[in-house]
Amino acid sequence: MRVSRTTIGVIGGGQLARMMYAPATRLGIGLRLLAEGPDVGAARIFKDVTVGDYTDEATVRAFAAGCDVITFDHEHVPTRILRGLVADGKLVRPGPDALQHAQDKLLMRQRLTDSLNAPAPKWRACANGDELWEFGKQIGFPIIAKASRGGYDGHGVWKVDRPDQTEIPFEEALAESAGEKVEIIGEEFVDFARELSVIVVRAPSGQAVVYPVSETIQRAGVCRETITPAPGLTEEQATRIAKLGLDIADELQVTGVLAVELMQRHDGSVVINELAMRPHNTGHWTIDGAHTSQFENHLRAVLDLPLGDPRARDRWSVMVNVLGGTRDDLPSELLHCFARDPKLRVELYGKDMRPGRKVGHVNCYGDDLDEVRARAEHAARYLMGEIGEG
Amino acid sequence: MRVSRTTIGVIGGGQLARMMYAPATRLGIGLRLLAEGPDVGAARIFKDVTVGDYTDEATVRAFAAGCDVITFDHEHVPTRILRGLVADGKLVRPGPDALQHAQDKLLMRQRLTDSLNAPAPKWRACANGDELWEFGKQIGFPIIAKASRGGYDGHGVWKVDRPDQTEIPFEEALAESAGEKVEIIGEEFVDFARELSVIVVRAPSGQAVVYPVSETIQRAGVCRETITPAPGLTEEQATRIAKLGLDIADELQVTGVLAVELMQRHDGSVVINELAMRPHNTGHWTIDGAHTSQFENHLRAVLDLPLGDPRARDRWSVMVNVLGGTRDDLPSELLHCFARDPKLRVELYGKDMRPGRKVGHVNCYGDDLDEVRARAEHAARYLMGEIGEG
Repeated sequence: MRVSRTTIGVIGGGQLARMMYAPATRLGIGLRLLAEGPDVGAARIFKDVTVGDYTDEATVRAFAAGCDVITFDHEHVPTRILRGLVADGKLVRPGPDALQHAQDKLLMRQRLTDSLNAPAPKWRACANGDELWEFGKQIGFPIIAKASRGGYDGHGVWKVDRPDQTEIPFEEALAESAGEKVEIIGEEFVDFARELSVIVVRAPSGQAVVYPVSETIQRAGVCRETITPAPGLTEEQATRIAKLGLDIADELQVTGVLAVELMQRHDGSVVINELAMRPHNTGHWTIDGAHTSQFENHLRAVLDLPLGDPRARDRWSVMVNVLGGTRDDLPSELLHCFARDPKLRVELYGKDMRPGRKVGHVNCYGDDLDEVRARAEHAARYLMGEIGEG
Repeated sequence: MRVSRTTIGVIGGGQLARMMYAPATRLGIGLRLLAEGPDVGAARIFKDVTVGDYTDEATVRAFAAGCDVITFDHEHVPTRILRGLVADGKLVRPGPDALQHAQDKLLMRQRLTDSLNAPAPKWRACANGDELWEFGKQIGFPIIAKASRGGYDGHGVWKVDRPDQTEIPFEEALAESAGEKVEIIGEEFVDFARELSVIVVRAPSGQAVVYPVSETIQRAGVCRETITPAPGLTEEQATRIAKLGLDIADELQVTGVLAVELMQRHDGSVVINELAMRPHNTGHWTIDGAHTSQFENHLRAVLDLPLGDPRARDRWSVMVNVLGGTRDDLPSELLHCFARDPKLRVELYGKDMRPGRKVGHVNCYGDDLDEVRARAEHAARYLMGEIGEG
């Protein structure tokens, strides 16, 4: 179903919603925001903001009533609320049937294994600690334990080295998350060589585009840097990963961005780590590095408009996240960064500063990967207060 | 003087203000808008909008009180009001001493002739019709008559073919424009081969960048298309034009964008046609075609931040304006354009449709100029309703 003179409602007021505003403006599309508070990053720039709790059904319903189609900054809206919107006849993109696979890691593992036999670490649903220990003994420690819902940036994931490990907060992990059941998944510890990410965007028409595969470098569970295309990936590997992303988007009938995070083993093979169904940190390079950004293509998909060219404009694109550090007034700190690098691209999220919080990112692109990485790294480290003006 | 944690006040709510919003958001800078009405293009997307009359001193003063620095969507704010803001100690960028040369064509001719001996058509200030006829007889008809203030897009410019020509609305032209004296300038009719434009951005620090020279193609006095770089321009010609733009920006101490519109004679020489001191229609290609857009660089200049790389990212960049035509719901009409051309870049201004009004533009870039022009031309003509889906 195509929508016209559309108002898109975005649930969640973080940087992903914020970065949708520029392409929506370009395309002449109205965006409304349901924000957690008046001072979150997107609420500071959107014209049309409702402040309210996205876990409250009445709040979400009232917000949706003023929108033609609903999309998301995050995956945390309870599935039952989204099913209610769909039952009301509201367009929800991605829809709850797809989205639950990004909300529930156990459901994702089951579905992708059953339907696609997609590459995954060995895994098992574990109803209690005993079952997790049993799984570990069977496949060998260490193993990974994950909460099926509610985790992000390394939260809700634990490495389990031995059967008697006690520091895992099972009770906390198994508490309900926004009214949904949380379970524990035991997973094989993959001794990966590196992490990769592939971003697919799919429209309701079935059209889909796939961006070049990125290498992603994490620090303490948080994405620190992406390099696109992933260095050293063979064309065959890249094609296989692109096909995997497209197959998952099609199987789950995703609308909008699907990010597939992968672990690549030393032998070059990959396994799926996580899915996300919204613009993704590993796709921020596309704002400056691709013909069409992930944010514009997400909106185009939500409107069932034909998708834009996902290819890279330059040989190499590098993104480095800026985490909250010792510097406070980031717009003014740009003085040093811009003086040093006239081609530097910066995006600040308008958030209050808090140590370790994602407050922005920098993009660089060019022909020489070492130089591009050094430029991006320098700017991000400067903005984080890790280095001075030297 | 450098400004920090800055709020920039933008006077004028048209598409130029609107297109400042995305780069301001990226850089984490707050923008406030003084708009002519609640429904103008920029007012529809800015979060912080004051509706008021920019020719009313009290309105402008009250608006400016909430801003750290003032800049513009247009050049129509009366000089005396801007001088009042400066007297109050407000940062106005560009300042009235510079801006008056974009507001008053006579002042511009006098200053650029006296200070820079800059290339101009033969010209004379004419106090009345007799002096205009006298000038025409001296240099030979046809000549051009221009109102010194208030003209735009071909308004306030007349071609005078013979001494007894009566259809020129002298009285109307010589009426006061927003309280400022309007005079008539007689100018030599330049039999130009084509029109060119050069965009310079200058910061208060004195740093300036210059974009590649564009060829601009007008229809009925309105910019229809730009091609960048201007085809067939020799490196020496391009360098001379870039230097001319930089010299004018420096001489007039411009802050922000200076657009110099030029006429190129058949022998390759150029004369200055007009100046503008704000982001300019002939610089819209920079949004997709340059490393740093004219809008971001304008804001960086207004904040006295180091300017970004103005160079083109591709061999050719073509912009074609979309004027109001028979199609109404442009966001929905993008279906055809995007299906045909996944690399097409579109910007819609969120304006109510009116025939002939600038309502958007399209950008294309690539290696093959004919193909790039054909793609841009097709999309713009489709959006204007000049062609169907064939």
